[in-house]
Amino acid sequence: MGWDEVGSTVCPVAKSLSVIGDRWTLLIMRELSLGVRRFDDIQAQLGASSYLLSTRLKRLEKDGVIERRLYNEKPQRYEYHATAKGRALDPILLMLRAWGMTYCGHTDDEPAVTLTYKATGEVVDENWKIPETEWPFSLDVLESVMGEAFTKEREEKRRLFRKSKKNEVN
Amino acid sequence: MGWDEVGSTVCPVAKSLSVIGDRWTLLIMRELSLGVRRFDDIQAQLGASSYLLSTRLKRLEKDGVIERRLYNEKPQRYEYHATAKGRALDPILLMLRAWGMTYCGHTDDEPAVTLTYKATGEVVDENWKIPETEWPFSLDVLESVMGEAFTKEREEKRRLFRKSKKNEVN
Repeated sequence: MGWDEVGSTVCPVAKSLSVIGDRWTLLIMRELSLGVRRFDDIQAQLGASSYLLSTRLKRLEKDGVIERRLYNEKPQRYEYHATAKGRALDPILLMLRAWGMTYCGHTDDEPAVTLTYKATGEVVDENWKIPETEWPFSLDVLESVMGEAFTKEREEKRRLFRKSKKNEVN
Repeated sequence: MGWDEVGSTVCPVAKSLSVIGDRWTLLIMRELSLGVRRFDDIQAQLGASSYLLSTRLKRLEKDGVIERRLYNEKPQRYEYHATAKGRALDPILLMLRAWGMTYCGHTDDEPAVTLTYKATGEVVDENWKIPETEWPFSLDVLESVMGEAFTKEREEKRRLFRKSKKNEVN
């Protein structure tokens, strides 16, 4: 079975992995959930090549996970938004975060993004349980504040990306 | 940023994807959760090359997600088991299943695997909510019965795999 055939199985785990199993895909969804919607901005954070990012975005659009919205007529420019199918990946993002915090060296005092549950103000850490009233779960019920270290890391990526683009032009 | 650098971010989503972001990885974890533990049996179901599967298993072992256990002395043969870190991926597998059932063409009447919540006998479908008493969630609290179509699909894969191995030897 090549990877293309995975989608033809009856197993829903394999089917969803055939759509989102690529590691870049969920990082793209993370960017969208952080409100980063433009090609260059996503690319700056992921550091993927234009070709790779463009392939992934097209595939996700084809699979109905994201959609493009025109935000500029001339030249035509698009922003990327998660569809309902894409937003339904929110619980998976939340659990990847919890797993990463627990098992992948969560050593800093400050989380990359501090999430709080809007309804109660509770901090959403790796042990937070999705309340039964909040299914299907959406990240919209959480407030997110980006920490200093992650903010710096992201600014640095933006800076390096702009620099490399400038060098391309010169 | 190449993929190797992703693990060095402060973001726990990116960190976990650097470990499990490969699409084969969660399929390996699915096999282990189904009780399939031997190299050839996993390979038959995934259809991955020996090289690819062996690379992924070694990487998962190094990352502490799975462990090898000797089951035969001569010749030395190992089975693969999920560690606590690997079992902590159970909620992610469950949510991938729910997402796949909802959005990736769940057309059959019969699910690939029928899961029921042992405590109540409830069927665990795509709308099932993890009870707040069951966090951290483990698939052990569910009973699984493989459906006819998925059983057939898997038998066929085993058959084809054995045939192809036989042809290699001849």
